[in-house]
Amino acid sequence: MTVKTSVQRDLEALKQHQQVIADIQQAINLLSWDQNTYMPPGAAAARAQQMATLSKISHGYQSDAKVKTWLDSLEAAGLSAESDEAALLRLTRRAYERATKLPGDFVEDFTRQRALAQQAWIAARQDADFAKFAPSLQTMVDYSLRQADYLGYEDHPYDALHDLFEPGSKVAKLRAVFGPLRDATVELVREIVQNGRDLSDAPVHQVFDETKQEQFAVEVIKDFGYDFERGRLDRTVHPFAQGISNSDVRITTRYSQDFLNPALFGTLHEAGHAIYEQGIADAYQRSPLGNAISLGIHESQSRLWENLIGRSYGFWQHAYPRLQEIFSAQLAQVSLDDYYAAINKVEPSLIRVEADEVTYNLHIMIRFELELSLLEGSLAVTDLPEAWNEKYREYLGITPSNDAEGCLQDIHWSLGAIAYFPTYTLGNIMSVQFFEAAKRDQPEIEKDIAQGKFDKLFGWLREHIHIHGSKYEPEDLLKRATGSELDARPYIDYLNSKFRTLYGLPPRQG
Amino acid sequence: MTVKTSVQRDLEALKQHQQVIADIQQAINLLSWDQNTYMPPGAAAARAQQMATLSKISHGYQSDAKVKTWLDSLEAAGLSAESDEAALLRLTRRAYERATKLPGDFVEDFTRQRALAQQAWIAARQDADFAKFAPSLQTMVDYSLRQADYLGYEDHPYDALHDLFEPGSKVAKLRAVFGPLRDATVELVREIVQNGRDLSDAPVHQVFDETKQEQFAVEVIKDFGYDFERGRLDRTVHPFAQGISNSDVRITTRYSQDFLNPALFGTLHEAGHAIYEQGIADAYQRSPLGNAISLGIHESQSRLWENLIGRSYGFWQHAYPRLQEIFSAQLAQVSLDDYYAAINKVEPSLIRVEADEVTYNLHIMIRFELELSLLEGSLAVTDLPEAWNEKYREYLGITPSNDAEGCLQDIHWSLGAIAYFPTYTLGNIMSVQFFEAAKRDQPEIEKDIAQGKFDKLFGWLREHIHIHGSKYEPEDLLKRATGSELDARPYIDYLNSKFRTLYGLPPRQG
Repeated sequence: MTVKTSVQRDLEALKQHQQVIADIQQAINLLSWDQNTYMPPGAAAARAQQMATLSKISHGYQSDAKVKTWLDSLEAAGLSAESDEAALLRLTRRAYERATKLPGDFVEDFTRQRALAQQAWIAARQDADFAKFAPSLQTMVDYSLRQADYLGYEDHPYDALHDLFEPGSKVAKLRAVFGPLRDATVELVREIVQNGRDLSDAPVHQVFDETKQEQFAVEVIKDFGYDFERGRLDRTVHPFAQGISNSDVRITTRYSQDFLNPALFGTLHEAGHAIYEQGIADAYQRSPLGNAISLGIHESQSRLWENLIGRSYGFWQHAYPRLQEIFSAQLAQVSLDDYYAAINKVEPSLIRVEADEVTYNLHIMIRFELELSLLEGSLAVTDLPEAWNEKYREYLGITPSNDAEGCLQDIHWSLGAIAYFPTYTLGNIMSVQFFEAAKRDQPEIEKDIAQGKFDKLFGWLREHIHIHGSKYEPEDLLKRATGSELDARPYIDYLNSKFRTLYGLPPRQG
Repeated sequence: MTVKTSVQRDLEALKQHQQVIADIQQAINLLSWDQNTYMPPGAAAARAQQMATLSKISHGYQSDAKVKTWLDSLEAAGLSAESDEAALLRLTRRAYERATKLPGDFVEDFTRQRALAQQAWIAARQDADFAKFAPSLQTMVDYSLRQADYLGYEDHPYDALHDLFEPGSKVAKLRAVFGPLRDATVELVREIVQNGRDLSDAPVHQVFDETKQEQFAVEVIKDFGYDFERGRLDRTVHPFAQGISNSDVRITTRYSQDFLNPALFGTLHEAGHAIYEQGIADAYQRSPLGNAISLGIHESQSRLWENLIGRSYGFWQHAYPRLQEIFSAQLAQVSLDDYYAAINKVEPSLIRVEADEVTYNLHIMIRFELELSLLEGSLAVTDLPEAWNEKYREYLGITPSNDAEGCLQDIHWSLGAIAYFPTYTLGNIMSVQFFEAAKRDQPEIEKDIAQGKFDKLFGWLREHIHIHGSKYEPEDLLKRATGSELDARPYIDYLNSKFRTLYGLPPRQG
C-alpha cells in the first residue's frame, strides 16, 4: 500500500477542484453557443441569469481559500519546471490572482456598465451617431483603467488589460513589432494602389448556391483535418468558433448568395480555430492546461488555414478544378490565375471585417494606437471620431462618411474589451512564423498542399502547438516551435512577395 | 427605513438559494437538450461529466445544512397555507428530504449501475435476447427497493418510487382507478375487433412530403398557442419536449415520409407538454414553484391537445380542408369521415408507442401490474418474458414473437425508472377530467374548436393548470380545476362514446 505524501494529496485535491471548474466552464460554453445559434429570442433574460450564476459559482471555486493553501504548499515543493504540474500551478496561480484581485462589487458594476454600453453602442451605430455612445465609451475607459490598477502593471495600464487576452505580451514589444509592419504595409498598399495592375474580383461576385458553397467548404475543412465527430457546422449571422471541450468544438458560417468569399474563407478561418482546440491533449482535459493559451496563438491558427493555405496559389492548383466542377456555370470559363487574383484583390476599405489580407492590419494598427491614446489621456473620448478618420486618411487614404462605418463599427469597446485588437495582428504575424518553421522542418509541405494533402502540416501544428494547450506561455510556445521571438519580418516578406508578384510590382528594396 | 424580521430574512435567503439551484437546473436542461439534438457523437463522455458535475453542485445546494435551518425556522412561523411561500417551503422540504435521505455512495452506485443496465438493455434488445438484460433488471429492482427503503413509505415500496414522478399518488388508488379502466378497455377492444365495422387507415399511409408535414403541424400548434418566441421545433429520432425555463421550452419531432400520423400527432403531443411549461407563472421562475408539478399532469396536457383535440371530429371540420389543400394529391378524394376513421383506427398491437388511443392504456396496465409483481417478489425477473406475453394474450389477444417486441421494448426499466409508466394513464384519465371541466365552465369551447379557435380552452388551461406550476399537489390541482378526485369514469365514457360511434357499435350497457 502506498502512502501518499502531502504534496501528492494537495496536487490531487487541486486537480479535482480544477475539474469542477472546467466542467462548469464547459457548461457556460454550451450556454453561449446556444445563445448565438438556436436559443429562442424570448429566452435572453433567463440565459443571462443562467450564465451569471454559473460564472459566480465558478468564481467561488477559483477564489476559494483552499486554492491558495494548495498553491502555497505546492509551489514550495520544487516541482520540475518542465512538468505539467508546474504549468498547472502557474495557471492556477494566475486565475486565483485574477479572481481575488478584482473586488466583487467592481466586477458586478463593470458587468452592468458593459451591458448598458452595449445597448448604447447598438443605438449609436444604428443612428451613426457617436455622441450617443461617447459617455459609455468614457465609462469603459475609466473602468478599464481601474481594472488595470486592480490587476497591477509595471509600465503601462494597457499591459494589464492586454495580458487578459495575450499573457505576457506588452505594449513596448507591440510598438516595436507593429511599427515596421505598419510602415511596410502603408508603403505596399500605396504602391499597389498607384502602380499595381488592375485585378478584377468579378469572378467571386456571381450567384453561388448556398448549399453548394457549404458542400465545398465542408470538403475542404475535412481535408484540412477538422473532425466532424467532435464538431459541427451551423449557420449564424456572425460566424464564430466555440469550443465546449476538446471533444466538441463547433463552428458557424454565414452565406452570401452573390459573393463567394465570406462563407468560403470564413469557414476555413473558423475551422482553423477549431482544429487548434480539437488538438489539445486529451490528458489536459478538465484542467486549465486544456484551454487555448491566448487569442494571438488562436488567431495564428485560423489565419494560417484561411490565408497562408486558403488564399495560396498552391492550394488552388488542387482545389480549383473541384470548385469549377461544383460551380461550372460560374467558373468554367475563369482561369486559375484570374480566380486567384479575384480572391486576393487588395483595396483600401472602411470595414475591418471585410478587409483584404494586406490592408487588414492597418485597421488593427489604428485601433491599437487610438486605444493607447485613450488610456494615456492624450485623446479625449469626444475627439475619437476625428482622430479615427484622420488615421484612416493617413494609413489607408480613405475617410468614413459617417461613424457607423468609422469608429462605431466594432463591438469590442462596448464589451469593455480594450487591448483585444492587437491579438488579430499578433495572429497574422505568428501564422507566418509557424508556417515557415513547419516548412523548414518538413520541406514536402508546400508540394503536398498543391496536391490537396495536409497531413504533414496538420501533424506539425498538432505536435508543436495544439497538443500543448496552455502548458507554455505564448512567447515560449512560439520560441519552442520556431526558434524565434515574435518577429514581423517574415510576415512583411510574405506580404511583399505574394502581393508584389500578384500586382506586377518590382521586388521590394532593401 | 424598514427593519426586516428574521422570517423575512430567512425567506429571502432561501429564495436566493433556490434561484441558484434553478439556474443550475436550467443549464442541465440545456445540456440535456443539446445531447439529444445537436451534440457531436464524440462529445458524449465530456457531456456526461458536465452533467454529473452540475448535478453534484446542485445536490450540494439542495442538501445544504442552511436549508434545514431556514426550513425549521420558517415552518414554525405559521405562514398562510394558501400562500406561495407555504408552497415554497413544502417543495423545498421535499427536495431537502430526498437529497439527504439517499446516501451519496448509494446514489453514485445506482447511477453507475443504471449506465451499465442501459448498455445491457441496448444489446439485449438488439439481439432480442432477454437473458442479456435479466441480471441488470434484477439489479434495478434491488436498487429500487433499497431506494424505496431509504425514502420511506407506509404501505408499499412502489409508493415511494412512484412519488418521485407523481407526488401523492399511491398504489392503492392506482389499483382502484385502473381496475375498472382495464376491464372496460378490454371489453371495448374485444367488441371492436369482433363486431366493429372495418375501418381503413390507407389514407394516412401515403407519401407525404416532410417539409409540408412540418408546415402543417407548425400552423396547428401556433393556433393551439405554442409560442415560438419562447420555443423551437427540431428534428430528432426520438421526439421529446424539453423545458429549459418557461421562456424556453423546445420540442422535437420525427418524420415518416409514408405515414402521416407520427409527425403530426407527435408534434401536437409535444406541443401540449410545451404549452404547459410555457404557461407557468413568470413570478415562479427561478424557484421550485416554476417546475411542472408531476408527469401525470404533464401528460394530461399533451394528451389533451393530441387526442381530445387533435383526434376529434370537430377539430378536423376546420383543419381538414387546409390539410387537403397542402396534400391535395393524397387527400383531395378522401372524405372527412374517411380521414377521421383513418386517424382513429383501433387495432391491438405489440408496441406501446405505436398504440392507438384505446389500446394504449392496456400496455400501461400490463407494465404496472408486472412492476408490482417484481417489487413484491411474486414474479421472478427470469419469468418476466412469459408473464409479459401472457398478459398481452389476455388483454390484447396478441403475442410478441420475440422479447424485442415484448418486454425489452421500453427504455424505462434500464434507466431505473420503475413506477413511471402509470403516469401515462393518469395523464389520459385527467385529460378528460380537465377537458370536461373546461367545457362546463366555457360551453363555447366545443364550437370554437370546430372553427379553429382555441383561445378559450387555452385560457382555461392556463388559468386552472399551467400558471400554478408546482404550487398545488396534483390531486389538489385536479380538485381545484375540476371539482373531482381522480376518476376514470369520464375517460371510460369518452372512449366508449367516441369509438362505439366510430365502429358502429351499440351504446354501452349500464
